Amino acid sequence: MAEDEVVFVGNKPVMNYVLAVVTQFNSGAKDVRIMARGRAISRAVDVAEVSRSRFLPDVRVMGIYISTETLDTDRGATNVSAIEITLGK
Amino acid sequence: MAEDEVVFVGNKPVMNYVLAVVTQFNSGAKDVRIMARGRAISRAVDVAEVSRSRFLPDVRVMGIYISTETLDTDRGATNVSAIEITLGK
Repeated sequence: MAEDEVVFVGNKPVMNYVLAVVTQFNSGAKDVRIMARGRAISRAVDVAEVSRSRFLPDVRVMGIYISTETLDTDRGATNVSAIEITLGK
Repeated sequence: MAEDEVVFVGNKPVMNYVLAVVTQFNSGAKDVRIMARGRAISRAVDVAEVSRSRFLPDVRVMGIYISTETLDTDRGATNVSAIEITLGK
């Protein structure tokens, strides 16, 4: 399923998400999208780089897309940057 | 000069770097590379998004490239992720 091939990166350690990415590929996924918002964007890049260089040498970056999302918070709407990194074979 | 068309993003407020990007384009640059390492990567994405959506509507993301750089520190070599976002007309 498409939902299974997305890894949302948050505040956990990088290796948690790397494990998720590697698991997706080992389960037969052709490509995996790594998504993050705000300060987690840096970690998403770490996840992509560590997955690729240390665990998945045959996987490469297929595309990187950045955007701005509007979130509703207690103090009104606020803009936050987002990134989507697609890894594929 | 090529050096003038690169903006290195560090720990200053986002708007400082946005101003640098806008200034480059207003000085005649055809494209500007926004570069950052480590935790500044999130801020680099903010710089690209704010520059584009608020100040430079005719500019778009030409390419995004991620990599791993090895830095020599007091405690030995360490790996850090890096991003390069190219904005262009």
